Amino acid sequence: MSAEAKLKELNITLPEVTKPVASYLNAVRSGNLLYLSGGLPDLGLPEFRGKVPTDVTPELAKEAAREAILGRLAVIKAEVGSLDAVKKFVSLQAFVNAETDFTDVPQVINGASDTLVEIFGQEIGSHSRTAVGVASLPLNVCVEIALVVELLD
Amino acid sequence: MSAEAKLKELNITLPEVTKPVASYLNAVRSGNLLYLSGGLPDLGLPEFRGKVPTDVTPELAKEAAREAILGRLAVIKAEVGSLDAVKKFVSLQAFVNAETDFTDVPQVINGASDTLVEIFGQEIGSHSRTAVGVASLPLNVCVEIALVVELLD
Amino acid sequence: MSAEAKLKELNITLPEVTKPVASYLNAVRSGNLLYLSGGLPDLGLPEFRGKVPTDVTPELAKEAAREAILGRLAVIKAEVGSLDAVKKFVSLQAFVNAETDFTDVPQVINGASDTLVEIFGQEIGSHSRTAVGVASLPLNVCVEIALVVELLD
Repeated sequence: MSAEAKLKELNITLPEVTKPVASYLNAVRSGNLLYLSGGLPDLGLPEFRGKVPTDVTPELAKEAAREAILGRLAVIKAEVGSLDAVKKFVSLQAFVNAETDFTDVPQVINGASDTLVEIFGQEIGSHSRTAVGVASLPLNVCVEIALVVELLD
Repeated sequence: MSAEAKLKELNITLPEVTKPVASYLNAVRSGNLLYLSGGLPDLGLPEFRGKVPTDVTPELAKEAAREAILGRLAVIKAEVGSLDAVKKFVSLQAFVNAETDFTDVPQVINGASDTLVEIFGQEIGSHSRTAVGVASLPLNVCVEIALVVELLD
Repeated sequence: MSAEAKLKELNITLPEVTKPVASYLNAVRSGNLLYLSGGLPDLGLPEFRGKVPTDVTPELAKEAAREAILGRLAVIKAEVGSLDAVKKFVSLQAFVNAETDFTDVPQVINGASDTLVEIFGQEIGSHSRTAVGVASLPLNVCVEIALVVELLD
């Protein structure tokens, strides 16, 4: 099943593409690679702001990671017209706004990784990944996620 | 106007290319992509050392981000001969040496992003971007900035 | 001398390839670039867990960085059959689980960079690099290291 068909089956509506919060683009294409800027979860949702696990529970942060990746998919669709233009998710880079003793970073970011596999399947959706806990994030969101995506010719 | 001409018009002199502070190169080319190492602001300037906003004000850190990106442009020029060999700034990755409650990371890094657009224009200079606050940076600088740049054939 | 021959000369045995700790792959190839996930040092070694320099000395963290990069080389070998398939190490991205006043990040990460040059020589092994101190890392390891590698055709 195509990713677009799967989105419909799962009854997922992608969020609106938001303007970057500063002087940069949501994505830049170079050859058949699309580099996406670090994306944030919906800024209208205050429950996704703060540090994990003090202000935001790991479970909620995992949901924020899912929201952030759906936002990135919306950017891909806006850039190239269809999610079915994705050949492969190459690299996912994730940052958690973490307390210095919070080490369950991988579980939080699975909220993003699992969503890619759910929509695109293992072959296209599975990816290389780097995930770390950082001291602070823009606008005090709990997660930020960037992508490198390979597009079909 | 070409980037080299714009540099002259703006009366900007690029800094000297410095040796990496450890066992790595300033940049590596792969195909038409140039990967630049994380660059620091001028190490001779103690005002660019420390945490934002406690030791370094956000305004000063923004200046440091501009200095760091000018240093990266000097590396590009040293590697490929001219800034006019740049086809597109693809990806900028920025790290701010941040207190855990400092969330104005985007404003600080605009010091780098705005400088690229000022010199190269929107079409070439605008880029995808990831910006986060980190626990510490090499030599206690306040910002570190890496780039992926696409070169003309 | 080839990298595989050098490994034998140095009497280095690569570690077993471990499964990723969450929903992602160890590596993804796109064209002739191999993107490796952030790799951790051997999780069976408790001395490599904790913050630098409080829990883990910088010297030990440097050793952990060497172990982490050997684990990445094991992944490369598993993916493409031989270390001699590497044309160039393009980019290394390193994260140190650092106290907020620990600024000797570059020395720690030289444990990885020096190992690449030792095994592959300057021409292939030297790389661009980004190294920062972060608030926390998966499973409380002291370092995490990701790579982008160019492969021979």
